[in-house]
Amino acid sequence: MVDVAVIGAAGYAGIESVRWVLGHPRLSLALATSAADAGKPIASVYPALADATSMMFSEPSISAVTDAASVAILAVPHTAAMALVPALLEAGVTVIDLSADFRLADPDTYERWYGAPHTASSLLSEAVYGLPELDRSRLAGAQLVACPGCYPTAAVLAAFPAFESGVAVGTRIVVDAKSGVSGAGRAPAAGTHFVAVDEAIAPYKVGSHRHTPEMAQALSGVAGHDVSVMFTPHLVPMSRGLLATVYLDVEEGLSTEEAVEMYRGRYHAEPFVHVRDAGLMPSTGEVRGTNRASIGLHVDESTNTLVAVCAIDNLGKGSASQGVQCLNAVLGFPETEGLDAPAPVV
Amino acid sequence: MVDVAVIGAAGYAGIESVRWVLGHPRLSLALATSAADAGKPIASVYPALADATSMMFSEPSISAVTDAASVAILAVPHTAAMALVPALLEAGVTVIDLSADFRLADPDTYERWYGAPHTASSLLSEAVYGLPELDRSRLAGAQLVACPGCYPTAAVLAAFPAFESGVAVGTRIVVDAKSGVSGAGRAPAAGTHFVAVDEAIAPYKVGSHRHTPEMAQALSGVAGHDVSVMFTPHLVPMSRGLLATVYLDVEEGLSTEEAVEMYRGRYHAEPFVHVRDAGLMPSTGEVRGTNRASIGLHVDESTNTLVAVCAIDNLGKGSASQGVQCLNAVLGFPETEGLDAPAPVV
Amino acid sequence: MVDVAVIGAAGYAGIESVRWVLGHPRLSLALATSAADAGKPIASVYPALADATSMMFSEPSISAVTDAASVAILAVPHTAAMALVPALLEAGVTVIDLSADFRLADPDTYERWYGAPHTASSLLSEAVYGLPELDRSRLAGAQLVACPGCYPTAAVLAAFPAFESGVAVGTRIVVDAKSGVSGAGRAPAAGTHFVAVDEAIAPYKVGSHRHTPEMAQALSGVAGHDVSVMFTPHLVPMSRGLLATVYLDVEEGLSTEEAVEMYRGRYHAEPFVHVRDAGLMPSTGEVRGTNRASIGLHVDESTNTLVAVCAIDNLGKGSASQGVQCLNAVLGFPETEGLDAPAPVV
Amino acid sequence: MVDVAVIGAAGYAGIESVRWVLGHPRLSLALATSAADAGKPIASVYPALADATSMMFSEPSISAVTDAASVAILAVPHTAAMALVPALLEAGVTVIDLSADFRLADPDTYERWYGAPHTASSLLSEAVYGLPELDRSRLAGAQLVACPGCYPTAAVLAAFPAFESGVAVGTRIVVDAKSGVSGAGRAPAAGTHFVAVDEAIAPYKVGSHRHTPEMAQALSGVAGHDVSVMFTPHLVPMSRGLLATVYLDVEEGLSTEEAVEMYRGRYHAEPFVHVRDAGLMPSTGEVRGTNRASIGLHVDESTNTLVAVCAIDNLGKGSASQGVQCLNAVLGFPETEGLDAPAPVV
Repeated sequence: MVDVAVIGAAGYAGIESVRWVLGHPRLSLALATSAADAGKPIASVYPALADATSMMFSEPSISAVTDAASVAILAVPHTAAMALVPALLEAGVTVIDLSADFRLADPDTYERWYGAPHTASSLLSEAVYGLPELDRSRLAGAQLVACPGCYPTAAVLAAFPAFESGVAVGTRIVVDAKSGVSGAGRAPAAGTHFVAVDEAIAPYKVGSHRHTPEMAQALSGVAGHDVSVMFTPHLVPMSRGLLATVYLDVEEGLSTEEAVEMYRGRYHAEPFVHVRDAGLMPSTGEVRGTNRASIGLHVDESTNTLVAVCAIDNLGKGSASQGVQCLNAVLGFPETEGLDAPAPVV
Repeated sequence: MVDVAVIGAAGYAGIESVRWVLGHPRLSLALATSAADAGKPIASVYPALADATSMMFSEPSISAVTDAASVAILAVPHTAAMALVPALLEAGVTVIDLSADFRLADPDTYERWYGAPHTASSLLSEAVYGLPELDRSRLAGAQLVACPGCYPTAAVLAAFPAFESGVAVGTRIVVDAKSGVSGAGRAPAAGTHFVAVDEAIAPYKVGSHRHTPEMAQALSGVAGHDVSVMFTPHLVPMSRGLLATVYLDVEEGLSTEEAVEMYRGRYHAEPFVHVRDAGLMPSTGEVRGTNRASIGLHVDESTNTLVAVCAIDNLGKGSASQGVQCLNAVLGFPETEGLDAPAPVV
Repeated sequence: MVDVAVIGAAGYAGIESVRWVLGHPRLSLALATSAADAGKPIASVYPALADATSMMFSEPSISAVTDAASVAILAVPHTAAMALVPALLEAGVTVIDLSADFRLADPDTYERWYGAPHTASSLLSEAVYGLPELDRSRLAGAQLVACPGCYPTAAVLAAFPAFESGVAVGTRIVVDAKSGVSGAGRAPAAGTHFVAVDEAIAPYKVGSHRHTPEMAQALSGVAGHDVSVMFTPHLVPMSRGLLATVYLDVEEGLSTEEAVEMYRGRYHAEPFVHVRDAGLMPSTGEVRGTNRASIGLHVDESTNTLVAVCAIDNLGKGSASQGVQCLNAVLGFPETEGLDAPAPVV
Repeated sequence: MVDVAVIGAAGYAGIESVRWVLGHPRLSLALATSAADAGKPIASVYPALADATSMMFSEPSISAVTDAASVAILAVPHTAAMALVPALLEAGVTVIDLSADFRLADPDTYERWYGAPHTASSLLSEAVYGLPELDRSRLAGAQLVACPGCYPTAAVLAAFPAFESGVAVGTRIVVDAKSGVSGAGRAPAAGTHFVAVDEAIAPYKVGSHRHTPEMAQALSGVAGHDVSVMFTPHLVPMSRGLLATVYLDVEEGLSTEEAVEMYRGRYHAEPFVHVRDAGLMPSTGEVRGTNRASIGLHVDESTNTLVAVCAIDNLGKGSASQGVQCLNAVLGFPETEGLDAPAPVV
């Protein structure tokens, strides 16, 4: 068993990491830290785990982590992660970082979008981007994995095969995405009050959401040229789930069937990505509580537009379970280990 | 008081028409027909109206309508409307048609998208498209008003000022739209079961939704050239509300502030259209239960993309209350008559 | 027009009071105060009112109220109301108090349940309890109306006719009630976060909710003897609506039909109370956004138990619109004035 | 591996049975029948299972079941089960029946409540009631297990320790229960349409729900005397989850703490039942997707009323996972086998 500490364990991504670790046959939960809830039993904050663990949240402490665990999953806000990572790596702890701090290769881009200088930029080249389906070549044995944001996970899975195969011809894509409310985090706020969210849909941070440069970086890398992303996130009255509807200009003559076949070729060996038959589109309902991604494709032949839609669970493939998938890859386990039991179907 | 019959009154658009008529100071509900619920008190099917009316649903019958009413609001499925309209017009009844049958000028386009030949195509030239904000010049005294679909209402309100002013330069727009479940109608179906819809978002009918040619027709008319519409509707877990997020290519140099100013110029005299300040986007929550439309604008200057977002209530401005607004215009009443009381705020 | 100030206008009960006043033909909104949102346009906080008012929230100030208005609707927390009421009455302002401060006749009971001494207890005898269907005799011309809590409104409307008529024989009733989330107020909190509330139901404050003595007071008054209330409120994943399911011991031999007939006799002249046919039960959906109450009755003859169920909108008949109904009664207007337009039906 | 057939596999209880079998280390899915969906891949109806199985739904056929499986889980409507069970038992197949057909010991009671004569009443004495926490003594090796209804599961778990211990003194209890919409089944109907259910709560079948005699039977058996149940089910706008709020008359002097201690004594060895600390109540959110039951207790000492609240997932402990728990007991596996991985926490 590998001892795992979850840092920032009382937030949504943190507690979902905890539950995946608790249900994993080769991982053992060594520590779960939370500055706000330290000293409380995990089960008092999350009664769903009452029968699963009697552990208490503990104070965040580097030495407690390095004493207890060989792996740390970081579910902390941006800037908090880069404050912890150097010491953890120094102590030989493998880091699965769910925050944004090591996703962008360029520290200036980080500073521009996140409004803070990068304080551990020397580690950026060492960080491995944790989207196995895009590139898992550097994951085995990695010490620092920068897991993608929820929106980039869905948008990149929807779009990159079109760039990789060359059918995508434009330099701008539209990403119209829709997220459940857990994506906004656990802290109570006017914008996450039930009454504010229920029975309404609205866009937010249009053109300014911090996940924009991450999508552009990943897709530009695949395309071999700059790809601009026009990104509009929306908040949907549901707790979990994320749908990215991506519009790409494609070469003339591509049919929906060809697009499906091409994506299936790219993803056929991927246990967590399902490409739906031509004519069918994914729903976030079918991936809820899982590490799965479901993709649907449609080509509008009159305008040569590919509509590529990807549904994930924002806390699953978009965060916590993707972290465990990456950890499996790092440790040499099958990537599906502990992640493949079917979730509630309805 | 003008006597109004609502045909197809037991569906969602029908019953909302009934409630607007009941609350209108110059309209009187003369008849409410429903083939399925004839003989039942309206209040037994919709207990919310128990104190508002003791009327029963009656069998659909042309003569009953022409005997009782001078205006008929048609809330029936497509093809059913064109079967009724000739006789109603013949009898001198003014028709507010909420169906699709008289929206498209070209009967061949109708047949291609709706899969049925148009049986009253000689009336198409007489029908007035019922989107007052686009063009109210022919509404006064009109005998046949073809009210827009819910998606076209939102998308056209979001997009047409950009074409009218000339800042929109492309020939293709992307309309990514999100609708509440009432848009799917009242008939029980697998796809409207609570469990199927709740906690999930999914696209449907991508590239094939019947509202597509209606948007193209309206915007091409404004633009003076063909405009293609890449339209992706999504189903959202809420009862009412519709959000259209429209992406348009615009001329270089346009700023968000300029776009807001231009739209405000176009809409300043419109009582039901609100253009939000630069930086703010609309939510369907703010128009729920009303005839209002709320528009937000953002220009991405790096890609010269205008994101124009319009929120409406699909059963309000998208259907029943827009029908009453048009009827007000037909009858020479102020368009706001009976429509301007504030709806529940939260 | 009567000038009305709404104090605490930015909370849910406050803003709903504002919208009812704005839509009322004989009331005029003179002032809307909010300590937290003073200086902001009402429409910037509640965009739904963008076309209805350009007023700003103002700082709470007794003199501003007394200068501008002859009526004050108090939508402030308990203890805040009793700090304001003496000065308002002194200045001749009529007070409609939506808070709990003047509902309980006995200041000791108040102190025991609310944890604070009553600082204006000399006014308690002057306060008129604002449940017109129970007793409207003292409302005309009243200077201080203490409007009931949302739970007492529903529970008392469900239960009092059984005590008044004498069919209720016990001294204890069970009130199992279910409320939408707006009942918890607008302040963001862990317990009103969308993710915490969505897809879950749970009881809270079992046996200790502050509305308990209010129910007991009202029903004991009707019964002529002490009635104990075993009260269990539950939080339901919906924004608005409140259902009280009340269990009463009744005399042997009472049938459901007799109960319905008796309740209809009691309520037949009440414009806002609807008693459903035997066999039918109310849903909160049918009263949403209105001042209506819908009641259903069932007698279990094997155990002589009357199940009396009352559905209201917690922000409507349970708060803001009931305040306006009371104000109508105070001012000598028809009680339905400004309150009887049908709300959205679906 | 034990081969399991799920009969009626396309309904909600059926498909959840399928997913639990697929995730169980010692069970193998041999067959999944559905009259309506025969010939379709399971994953085409439930895309959530796309990566979990490629099996198709097959026509219901006794011989296909007896050929392929040693265990049959019956997720069919009442009366359908008793038509199948004799032949299955005859063929040596162990039956886990999720329907109502073998729950009631008395065939006359069955006929009175279900409106159909019992056609296999000779098997009633052989059937073992499948609520292990109440009595697991006859489960090991049983051939026919009659799993409880969802409401009885929650109500009996909430109430029986009070009768068993003797603190409950009355002969009537009130069961006020609230269920998610999946309890109404998968067939589309007016009452399960999203728009009908969303944002509303309502009681249904008050005093006439078929689960009433089952609760009375179980609790009378424990009490040693007749216990009447005043049962009011409510429909709540959520997909899954069931809360039973039970009111019992108890002997004078019982405190909440004593009640908690007594229940904990009764349930301390039960892996799936959690008794919350005094002062805390359960939410259905904490048991979603699991086989767990969470119980909260409160004694109102002024009226000697015990409020015992039990939260379960109606498709979990209330149906499919309880079937697997029973099957584990039948087969001699640990009851937690395949059932104890933590479900999604938020």
